[in-house]
Amino acid sequence: MGAPGRFVTLEGGEGTGKSTLIEGLHAALLARGITCHVTREPGGTVLAEALRALALTPPEGEIWSPLAQALLMNAARDHHLQDRIRPALARGDWILCDRFSDSTRAYQSIDGVAPDILIQLEQAVVGSTRPDLTLILDAAPDALMARRSRRGTRDVYEDKALAFHQKVRDAFLQIAAQAPERCLVINALQPAETVLQAALKAIETRLGGL
Amino acid sequence: MGAPGRFVTLEGGEGTGKSTLIEGLHAALLARGITCHVTREPGGTVLAEALRALALTPPEGEIWSPLAQALLMNAARDHHLQDRIRPALARGDWILCDRFSDSTRAYQSIDGVAPDILIQLEQAVVGSTRPDLTLILDAAPDALMARRSRRGTRDVYEDKALAFHQKVRDAFLQIAAQAPERCLVINALQPAETVLQAALKAIETRLGGL
Repeated sequence: MGAPGRFVTLEGGEGTGKSTLIEGLHAALLARGITCHVTREPGGTVLAEALRALALTPPEGEIWSPLAQALLMNAARDHHLQDRIRPALARGDWILCDRFSDSTRAYQSIDGVAPDILIQLEQAVVGSTRPDLTLILDAAPDALMARRSRRGTRDVYEDKALAFHQKVRDAFLQIAAQAPERCLVINALQPAETVLQAALKAIETRLGGL
Repeated sequence: MGAPGRFVTLEGGEGTGKSTLIEGLHAALLARGITCHVTREPGGTVLAEALRALALTPPEGEIWSPLAQALLMNAARDHHLQDRIRPALARGDWILCDRFSDSTRAYQSIDGVAPDILIQLEQAVVGSTRPDLTLILDAAPDALMARRSRRGTRDVYEDKALAFHQKVRDAFLQIAAQAPERCLVINALQPAETVLQAALKAIETRLGGL
């Protein structure tokens, strides 16, 4: 429609409902006549998905260091940006991305990679293609776990210690505090429809174009 | 036995004879009773070889940016150091490595990655595991090409323009000039046996332990 593309990222710990929200946003934006693409990180292109597989599920017994993980995430991101995100935004399309550079900053810093290295990598790879809006789905890990337990859902979320999930939450809240103009923290324990409406309202008021 | 391990890297453009020299060095060191391992970069471990394949021979039509290539080379290097090089050196073994961080600095800077990014990555990944000795095989690209042409050898060396090979040569000579205590430039146009003897002499005089 000639309007500029918008770049929206979703962040948050495991089990906070990013997939549900991104599906809801996709449907709502399409219904408004917006050409929008759902993608994810690490991944989103053939090469980046190949790196995702190698990084997240290496052969039995093989382990990447946290630094190597950070390098792989950034290499995948570079390709995703070059091959898919930047061309789509240049066409005026919208991008909804499940995790982006904030996840690398959060997870890899928890794993012990020096923050200055993470920031340098992010600047080199992301450059000026910063998200226009980042929706951070937030919940206390124990409340989230209790909710999932009540629903009878079991997944990898339970595999990690609560302390780790608390660190992830803290890291995302810190990112939000440092960039309030870009980030919106949404209470992930609300009903999915309430979360969706909060996200749509943020898109409308912060980005316009709806 | 009990002497510390030594880390020797071989660098230089395509077709300068690194493979021949590394085989000669390996045999000579083994003959002196030194436990020594031949390895290469990118590669040297299961994960790093997987990255090598993905980085150097991506699926048809897929292209990594120079920055992504630099990130992949460094991720592979991190794993190689962690899984193979550092443990071997800690055991007192020697490592002979066909290409290492100087190749990333040379090739990726020619491709346009900012030198400060390359240096930051190198510092983060290599840390204190700098090579004890780097043998740089050097020759004027046109002389090398003429020699190979006389021998009837044709390979990927001819696929790139002479100007590119000249840039590679210049980059390695610059690295050698900046770190003369670590690097030895060897005239690659000499007979293989002369090159080998020059390398062995450098190992003896600079590293001792033979």
